[in-house]
Formats: sequence, structure tokens, C-alpha cells
Amino acid sequence: MRAPSRWRAPDPALWPEPDGTLGYVDIGSLRMENGALLPDVTLALQRWGEVSPKGDNVILALHALTGDSHVTGPADDEHLSPGWWDGLIGPGAAVDTNEWCVLSANSVGGCRGSTGPGSLAPDGKPWGSRFPAVTIRDQVNAELQLANLLGIERFASVLGGSMGGARALEWEVSYPDRVATALVLAVGARATADQIGTQSAQILAIKTDPHWQGGDYYGTGREPEHGLGVARRIAHLSYRGEEELDERFGNSPQDGVEPFNGGTFSIQSYLDHQAGKLVRRFDAGSYVILSDSLSSHDVGRGRGGIQKALAGCPTPTIVGGITSDRLYPLRLQEELAAHLLGCNELRVLNTDKGHDGFLTDFDGISVLLSDTMDLARKTIG
Amino acid sequence: MRAPSRWRAPDPALWPEPDGTLGYVDIGSLRMENGALLPDVTLALQRWGEVSPKGDNVILALHALTGDSHVTGPADDEHLSPGWWDGLIGPGAAVDTNEWCVLSANSVGGCRGSTGPGSLAPDGKPWGSRFPAVTIRDQVNAELQLANLLGIERFASVLGGSMGGARALEWEVSYPDRVATALVLAVGARATADQIGTQSAQILAIKTDPHWQGGDYYGTGREPEHGLGVARRIAHLSYRGEEELDERFGNSPQDGVEPFNGGTFSIQSYLDHQAGKLVRRFDAGSYVILSDSLSSHDVGRGRGGIQKALAGCPTPTIVGGITSDRLYPLRLQEELAAHLLGCNELRVLNTDKGHDGFLTDFDGISVLLSDTMDLARKTIG
Repeated sequence: MRAPSRWRAPDPALWPEPDGTLGYVDIGSLRMENGALLPDVTLALQRWGEVSPKGDNVILALHALTGDSHVTGPADDEHLSPGWWDGLIGPGAAVDTNEWCVLSANSVGGCRGSTGPGSLAPDGKPWGSRFPAVTIRDQVNAELQLANLLGIERFASVLGGSMGGARALEWEVSYPDRVATALVLAVGARATADQIGTQSAQILAIKTDPHWQGGDYYGTGREPEHGLGVARRIAHLSYRGEEELDERFGNSPQDGVEPFNGGTFSIQSYLDHQAGKLVRRFDAGSYVILSDSLSSHDVGRGRGGIQKALAGCPTPTIVGGITSDRLYPLRLQEELAAHLLGCNELRVLNTDKGHDGFLTDFDGISVLLSDTMDLARKTIG
Repeated sequence: MRAPSRWRAPDPALWPEPDGTLGYVDIGSLRMENGALLPDVTLALQRWGEVSPKGDNVILALHALTGDSHVTGPADDEHLSPGWWDGLIGPGAAVDTNEWCVLSANSVGGCRGSTGPGSLAPDGKPWGSRFPAVTIRDQVNAELQLANLLGIERFASVLGGSMGGARALEWEVSYPDRVATALVLAVGARATADQIGTQSAQILAIKTDPHWQGGDYYGTGREPEHGLGVARRIAHLSYRGEEELDERFGNSPQDGVEPFNGGTFSIQSYLDHQAGKLVRRFDAGSYVILSDSLSSHDVGRGRGGIQKALAGCPTPTIVGGITSDRLYPLRLQEELAAHLLGCNELRVLNTDKGHDGFLTDFDGISVLLSDTMDLARKTIG
């Protein structure tokens, strides 16, 4: 155990309240993987639970593409939806906040309190098209600077699915000394051609919207809502199971009027609803930046390839996949589990819910979280 | 055998040349499924081979969404690509044009010579947004009017994959007396929620392009090329196998420059190329009309449901599916094969090529075409 026998935060004022109240931490400048320097980076942060006397019970929960720091708790003024793992983290829950202190930060490049393309640059104007490319490693490096400021020497666990899973994986491979255990869900060692293809098509859909204005739409009163809506529709289909969607919606008309007679399909209404929800809560510029960040995800880059990078990571890890995931198919988690030194076996969630199962398969995720906490207890000793 | 002992075309001048030269037939007005009347409909038509003395050797080859009447033959001034079943239809080929007379018509609603949204309405202006919704049954009814004018009492076989498969299926279920046999490939009994979802998102991408102009862009000098390109990228991904794409392109940068450093992924270049090719040869308005036609495909509509419709169709039929097809997954062809009275068994093409296997799996399709011709010989007697 590397933590001192009695842990004290370097600056307790930086820590947000333990009840989930949103806080903000200025992490300073961030040197990006492509060499750009992003100055004055702020990360929005939430916390649930108290740090243990030894400081060895801190968990980092990592959100996915359109998630944020709101891991648990009801919808409120700040958050249109309940937390993305609501009920899975809290007193008595799978990640019991009577035992663990859970932190979650909005990713750099995001739009939920952290510095992103809609934030003001030093010249007082929004970053917009000037915002640098963000890789998963850049996201992790921002979180590392945060951990250093908060005085966290080692996370008891880093947890995440999808982009959160990519972040967890990069955390443990980049900084194995700073991570005791990990849960890596519904992701792969690198982006696939199909993922890059759909992400780049979605980005083009956003940029085809004239309101995009080359990415400098902030403050113009016009936002690429149609383009973002198209992107979300495409993405949302890839998040759900093919059979699940067909069982729920089939080819039913929404109001009994056949679409060739002027009606609408139920699945269209459903996708309209999903698109509308995202457009109200999410920024198109952040969507572009973070989608590109998923496309450039490759844990083997500059490390002699994927197998070598994974073989060098001893962190005890639970890798989870979903049978009906068509965006991050099971073969990707099989590869991770086979090559990640610290992983014993692949845990498969048998559900028809598709990729979104990492959010919606409550019982399945609950078991994986509990088992990860067991692993953390054992590893921390 | 319903054909007269010695067959004569009612008006031989209507028939195109037997060498594949493009011809045009005015089929008159078409009453659409939604009640609209489309006047002065022309179908573009190609033929390979001579009609037999009994007129019982005519095959109808039915193209898919962005296909046309150019089933076989090289790229030329009229066609930027070789025929979509090039090499599979011709003298000595799987469909031997020394024995069979193959016809193929561009679908109504299309843009390759048949009446579509870019055609002139009776007022001398392009149809544009006024073009009526087209269902698969409307496409078949246009082809029925064509068959009546050409004097074809019964097709020896109707053949098609994807939208062509939907047309073949509707042909045999709507007009079992006019079809001796059928090959129905890579399609289902009705559109699924996923198919409708992706098609409607693609249509929205086209309509988000300001050059769409509400569908009335013809003659304005501006076409929704960006929107159509986005639609094609999304569609193209759904046409290919997930693993096949990843093996071919992975996450490689196109020119060795990492995309987060300003480069492009190989898969993006590939999709750019596919989009560019389509934009040069296909009209966005037709893409919208025919995509909607795929979404409204339901062989059971107004017939007491899918099972009843299929159970009432005795036409000897070969149903084919592709293992890696993620747009029309194998479960849909299993359903067809299980309920279609005239189908003995499902024929599965084991290839990683995805939905496009119905075009690219030359050997697999060749066998299915040969077997369908055997079935036709046996059925015609």
C-alpha cells in the first residue's frame, strides 16, 4: 500500500461535497497528445462518500460519450435524467458509498461543466473550431492532473463502459501505479473500422447542418440541432439490440396511419424523442470532439502494439461484454480479456439490450461492480 | 402451361434489343397504393436473350435500392460501374441467355431512366416534392403493367436481392399466376425497426442539407450532395460485414498521419469514395423515395398478416440469406423460408461480406441462380 498511514488532502477545499454536489477544479494547462497546449482547464466533479483515513478507498467512475459526472441521483435542474448508474452507486448499493468514496469528472472536451469547445478561450471568445483534438489519453491525463491536485495517490478502482471503458483501460495501462483495480466494460483495445466509420459519418451529418458554421456557432444563436439529431439517431440505433428494437417497435405506424399515407413509424418517433433529448442537453461541438476521441482510441499506440501494451498491465481487471452489442461486439472484449495481463476471464452479460446494456442491464452491471469491489478489497489488502 | 403454344409479342416494337441496349416503355398511368395517380409513367428497360417460341423463358431481374436495369455488362457511358450481377447473366453464365430471356427495368421512383422525382410532371416542371410515395407493391404494379404491354403472361422466374428481393417476394405473393419461380435474397417479409430507423435517419441527413430545398432542388443548380453522401456512408457500413471492414481497414490512418494530428482514417477515405461514387450516379430524391419504399415493405399488409400471406404463395422459391448480413439478418430469411408455402429450405451463404454478399459473393449467388433456373425448368415442364 503506497498511501501514507494517515491520508490528508493537499487542499481540502478542492474536493467537492460528499453528497454529489457539483464542484469545479482548475487543473491548469493540459499538454495534448498532439502537442497542443490547452490552458486553464477546468473539470467538473462530483463525489459521493468520504475518503478513508488511509485515502485508499477512492473510486473513479468514468462516463461515456454523452454522459457526465452525474453517476447517481435523480433528475434535477442540472441533469435532465437520473444518473447513468443510478442505484448502482450509493449507501448499500453495489458500490457502497458507506465504504467507498466515488469521484466522477466530466471529461475535458465535454459540455457538462468541464472545459470544452463551448468554453471561453483566453481571448474571451469561445474555443469553437480552435479547440484541439482530444484523445482518450488526453482525457486520462486531465484526470491524472486532477488526482494529483486532490492528493489521490492510487484509485482503488477505475470503472467505466464504452468511452468510460476506454478511459478506464487507458488509465490502468498508462498509470498502473495509480490504479489498484479496474472494470472495463463494452469497449475494445482500439477503435474498429465500423466504429470509426459510423462516428465519422455522424460528424459529417453535424457539419452538413449550415448552423454548424465551421464549428464556430457559439454565441450566434444558431446551433446545428438537426445535424446533431441525425447523428444521435444513427448512434442510438447502434447502441440498441437489433432484435430488441424490432420486438419493441417492428414496423408499426405511430398513430395508426401508414407512413406511405403520411404517417410516421413508431421507431421514427422513438428516435425523434432520443434525438430531441440529446439536443436539449448536449453540445454538438463536444459531440464531435469526443466522437473523434473514440475513433483515435488505441491502447497500443506508441507502446509496441495492443498485445504488448495489454501484456504489460498487471492491474487486476474485470472485463465485461454484452452478447447483443453490435457497436463493440464481444470479440473485442474477448481480445482484451485474452491479452490483458491482469484479467482472469471475460464476464459476459447475456442480454438483448445491445451496447446500452452497460447502462441498462442493472442486475448484470450490479454483479460486475460488486465483484470489482471485492477485487479492490483483496488488492488493497 | 398458360402461355399459348406459339407466343407473339403484342407489340414487338416495345421490346428493347436483345443485346442489353437500353429501351424505354411508356406504361401509362399508375395508381399508387396510397390512392395517388401517377400519370405518364416510363420504365427504362434492358434485355439479354431471345424470347422462346412459347414465350415461357422470360426472367425478370430486379435491382436493389441504388441499382438499375444494368444487370450485366461493363461500365460504359451510361453506367459508371459494371452490371450488378455482371458475369452471372449471359451466354453460358448461371442464367444462360442462350436459354433464357432476361429483362430488367429501372424501378418507378428511380433515376436511371424510369419516371421518378426528377422527371417532368405534366406541367413541365420536375415532380420534386410532389412525387407520390412509392411502395414495393407500386414498383411491382408498374412492372405488371410493363409485362402486360410486352405480352408476358408468366415470368419463368423473378430474381432479386435486398430491395430486389422485396420486389421478387411481392411479385410472387401479389401475382402468383404470373410467376413460375422466384429467388428471394437477403431480405425479409417486412421492414424491421432497425432498417426503418437507419433509412429514416439517412433521409433526415439528406433533408438537413440546405441544398435539398424541400425536395424541389431540380433545376436550381444545387443538389443535396453532402446529405446524400452522409446517407450513403451510413448505408454502406450497414451493407458490409463488421469483421470484414475491420480486417480491411482497422484504425489505420490513410497516409500515415494520425487523425488527431490532422490525418484521416482509411475507412473514412473508403467511405468518402463510396459516397462520391453514389453522388455522381444517383439522385437524392430517388434515394429518399426508394428508401421509404423499403421502410413500408410488408408482404402481409392487407393480407391478414405475414404468415397468412406467405402460406398462400405456392410459387417454388429459393430463399437465400447471408451469415454476416447485419441489415437483413439471417433470422428474417429463416422466417421467410419457414412460412413461404413454395419454399423448401433456406439457402445460407457463408461469407464475411455482409449484406452486399448478394452482389459480391459471386460463387454463392451463382449456385443459387443455377438452382433457381433448374427449378424454373422443372416448374415450366
